[in-house]
Amino acid sequence: MTEARAVSRFPVPDLADMPDDIRSRILAVQEKSGFIPNVFLVLAHRPDEFRAFFAYHDALMDKPGNLTKAEREMIVVATSNLNQCQYCVVAHGAILRIRAKDPLIADQVAVNYRKADITDRQKAMLDFAVRVSTEAQKVSESDFATLKAHGFTEEDIWDIAAISAFFGLSNRLANVTSMRPNAEFYSMGRG
Amino acid sequence: MTEARAVSRFPVPDLADMPDDIRSRILAVQEKSGFIPNVFLVLAHRPDEFRAFFAYHDALMDKPGNLTKAEREMIVVATSNLNQCQYCVVAHGAILRIRAKDPLIADQVAVNYRKADITDRQKAMLDFAVRVSTEAQKVSESDFATLKAHGFTEEDIWDIAAISAFFGLSNRLANVTSMRPNAEFYSMGRG
Amino acid sequence: MTEARAVSRFPVPDLADMPDDIRSRILAVQEKSGFIPNVFLVLAHRPDEFRAFFAYHDALMDKPGNLTKAEREMIVVATSNLNQCQYCVVAHGAILRIRAKDPLIADQVAVNYRKADITDRQKAMLDFAVRVSTEAQKVSESDFATLKAHGFTEEDIWDIAAISAFFGLSNRLANVTSMRPNAEFYSMGRG
Amino acid sequence: MTEARAVSRFPVPDLADMPDDIRSRILAVQEKSGFIPNVFLVLAHRPDEFRAFFAYHDALMDKPGNLTKAEREMIVVATSNLNQCQYCVVAHGAILRIRAKDPLIADQVAVNYRKADITDRQKAMLDFAVRVSTEAQKVSESDFATLKAHGFTEEDIWDIAAISAFFGLSNRLANVTSMRPNAEFYSMGRG
Amino acid sequence: MTEARAVSRFPVPDLADMPDDIRSRILAVQEKSGFIPNVFLVLAHRPDEFRAFFAYHDALMDKPGNLTKAEREMIVVATSNLNQCQYCVVAHGAILRIRAKDPLIADQVAVNYRKADITDRQKAMLDFAVRVSTEAQKVSESDFATLKAHGFTEEDIWDIAAISAFFGLSNRLANVTSMRPNAEFYSMGRG
Amino acid sequence: MTEARAVSRFPVPDLADMPDDIRSRILAVQEKSGFIPNVFLVLAHRPDEFRAFFAYHDALMDKPGNLTKAEREMIVVATSNLNQCQYCVVAHGAILRIRAKDPLIADQVAVNYRKADITDRQKAMLDFAVRVSTEAQKVSESDFATLKAHGFTEEDIWDIAAISAFFGLSNRLANVTSMRPNAEFYSMGRG
Repeated sequence: MTEARAVSRFPVPDLADMPDDIRSRILAVQEKSGFIPNVFLVLAHRPDEFRAFFAYHDALMDKPGNLTKAEREMIVVATSNLNQCQYCVVAHGAILRIRAKDPLIADQVAVNYRKADITDRQKAMLDFAVRVSTEAQKVSESDFATLKAHGFTEEDIWDIAAISAFFGLSNRLANVTSMRPNAEFYSMGRG
Repeated sequence: MTEARAVSRFPVPDLADMPDDIRSRILAVQEKSGFIPNVFLVLAHRPDEFRAFFAYHDALMDKPGNLTKAEREMIVVATSNLNQCQYCVVAHGAILRIRAKDPLIADQVAVNYRKADITDRQKAMLDFAVRVSTEAQKVSESDFATLKAHGFTEEDIWDIAAISAFFGLSNRLANVTSMRPNAEFYSMGRG
Repeated sequence: MTEARAVSRFPVPDLADMPDDIRSRILAVQEKSGFIPNVFLVLAHRPDEFRAFFAYHDALMDKPGNLTKAEREMIVVATSNLNQCQYCVVAHGAILRIRAKDPLIADQVAVNYRKADITDRQKAMLDFAVRVSTEAQKVSESDFATLKAHGFTEEDIWDIAAISAFFGLSNRLANVTSMRPNAEFYSMGRG
Repeated sequence: MTEARAVSRFPVPDLADMPDDIRSRILAVQEKSGFIPNVFLVLAHRPDEFRAFFAYHDALMDKPGNLTKAEREMIVVATSNLNQCQYCVVAHGAILRIRAKDPLIADQVAVNYRKADITDRQKAMLDFAVRVSTEAQKVSESDFATLKAHGFTEEDIWDIAAISAFFGLSNRLANVTSMRPNAEFYSMGRG
Repeated sequence: MTEARAVSRFPVPDLADMPDDIRSRILAVQEKSGFIPNVFLVLAHRPDEFRAFFAYHDALMDKPGNLTKAEREMIVVATSNLNQCQYCVVAHGAILRIRAKDPLIADQVAVNYRKADITDRQKAMLDFAVRVSTEAQKVSESDFATLKAHGFTEEDIWDIAAISAFFGLSNRLANVTSMRPNAEFYSMGRG
Repeated sequence: MTEARAVSRFPVPDLADMPDDIRSRILAVQEKSGFIPNVFLVLAHRPDEFRAFFAYHDALMDKPGNLTKAEREMIVVATSNLNQCQYCVVAHGAILRIRAKDPLIADQVAVNYRKADITDRQKAMLDFAVRVSTEAQKVSESDFATLKAHGFTEEDIWDIAAISAFFGLSNRLANVTSMRPNAEFYSMGRG
């Protein structure tokens, strides 16, 4: 019954009606994951926005860099829960569990990262990510200094900020579209 | 490794050193659940507070009444996430999944109950629970009228408010003691 | 005319209809105080919650410990005014005046404890109590260090946090029930 | 001992050193009240600001108009407590008790006017005063309509807004100067 | 068309009907500026308040002192934008551009003074002005110490606080009266 | 002197060192505008993010649709000022003045759109844009109904939300990079 609920409060196109590049990307994800994460279907309603969104996503989440894949997901999960974004917490919580190979970490980071089984360096990273998400206007050189004292580089700091900012966009879209998390995500990586 | 982390930043007494009534209660819970939820161990540091806390808990959560057991847990989960209480979201999320026989509901209610697979009546219940948790000083007769329009009685409204208020206490204690959720809770009821 | 106003927006039982233990407690308070503080009447509507509430209250407010009785009342008064709880500010303000033997202290602490005639140590105590009341999720070891620098022990810190948390519960119940402060409290201890 | 505490963290001039008009006003107040309210001494440090402040005060608080003297004081007390201004809550609380001939009203209005023994019309007045104090940028025609439905005129609405705004100024000055309420105010009008 | 819009949602008297002193002041301003800033017309509806308002204004903005005229306007512009006061940001932004002989400074300070082309000392001044505007109850000796480390005197600190507090009053009046900025202000001083 | 200040606190590549597609886009903008808006230089530090950012920007701001170009800029200006983003308010304020052919509108909308010379329909659009920016988690069907009553379609609502969300990302990046508005923007379109 649950699964019959709408994926989006906006129209979702049929795969057959999507532009080729979008359908291809979606089919590739489906092949890899075994299902189509709903964010792909929801954003396919707007092909140009779909392309830009995932290009941005990939530029931040898939590129090389000092932040581990798990750390990037921690940023998503911690900021998305403050923004009360169901899709992002559930979907990226699953990815975080898998990336970190830790079944407990996502729920810990989502609810209160200060109490999570992560390093002090990671807590400093999340302090900054949350600051960017909630009061970026107050970011100052002292924030940079704190992060550098934990070993982060200038480029790492850009990455943390950009991931926090990008998922702030994603969180708002998900809340306005009532983007529904796929049932698969809830139990993924729970061991 | 994870399990070796402290259950509380305050001392936790050995079972053998606890007063009889407290040890008995804990052993009964352990027998029923298969493990000892850490809240029992953390609060056992203060026997009189332990007794009052669980008496209050039972008076609200175990008594007869119109609110279902699952609905009471929804109140706990929704308000505890706003208070960023890791223990309460994880532990009561598990109980909610079991009470509601629904593996998805707890994460949905925790992150944004407005998008959860629950009834409009339950959303109104949670609107009120959140209002009590965050701005009880503004509660007025119009809140009572809204709830009554959804079929809640005066006694139900007291129950919603009292559960929200009691877990506000619990959330604050858990955050100050760094009460650690048992690993068992994370996957319970996920089907 | 004022006195004819309702003590609670919920039903208040007659003394004769209350369970014996509750009636006894209320009569004992009345004998000692000369009147029945309304919190007893309001909560008597729910006998099990009454018992748990006062057991918790007594465990925190009447037990031995390093915090003086006046200091415990300061915590109640400062946090209850931020929660806009009329009953708790008026009733515990009266008790604070009496405990501290100071007719000015309660109003000072209620409105802005930073400007009150109290010690720096007491201001640090109230800084922490307010933090627990408003953002317990952010409590960290640096809060503990600050309090210890003022001479508070770990057990004192638990006490401060628990009193703040318990009266957060009380404040919410009082606001939802429109619990009315007895007229007697307003002028008690004003010298 | 209490009375030896400083009236202001800034210098307070001797009466003999004040300009004639300021000394005269202060002596007149002293003759009428039996003591010199500290706000006069604190602001005498800045004679031009003293003159403008009391001219503004008198233009709002002493002029004819539909708002009773007690109602004007209610506005001061309710908004000043939200601004955590000890001087204004204590001093104007005293004046409110006297103007309203009600020993209970000031503490009720200060802590939570929604639960005070005042009329619905007065509660609407205070809703608006608080809105002006905390989010004046959102005031709209619907606020005017609500107030008019309670019988307030356009001129009354200006009065409410101006009193709220003026005491917002006063509250900030009092907090920055650590303006100390005179001991006399605490018990005045308590019957 | 724009200019036909109302200057105030309250009545604005004709110059001919104003008391002589008010008309004289307004004509003097008009002669100097080439137009009548609308704040004069809006407040002329209340002659006594007009007189007190401008006496206060002049006592803070025109008096000698260490703060430059431009620095005083920075305080007005930074705090008024946080209060979302269209009149004050637009009118005092114009004055700031002229006082500072800098066409860019007003927009910079209005939106985020932390990124403006001003000195660190001026940023510390605005940090304090904003704190007075938004949380004066928390001002403490450490704020005074920070300002003194930047070379501000006790009297300068009073000035900063008083300007912030006075324009908080002005901002609220402007928002409630829908005080319209004159079209002339928008382009003044833009070079 | 002002112009010598850094465009970004992160490195800015020389045009000659940029990938061809990025340099081409920048040169095209320069030819059209007469200068290079700094956002292009700041983001060129990250070519993939540059491409995704401007693809997203164009998909929202340049596409056909019911919202006029000026209305889209209103959304940017109103939400960016709440996020205290100097670059976006100054740069998009200039574009808004040009699109709307109105020299006053940008400052009005930035500071308090509720008082701007825009239609009620546009104010409803901005109410929603601000809600998405500050509390998207609470967006509900009643928001959609309000917008539809003003004639907005479902697709328009997506556009408003997406523009608000995208510039929330932009605002955060600009604040973290200290993105400096070009001097040219301040006076553009002021007539």
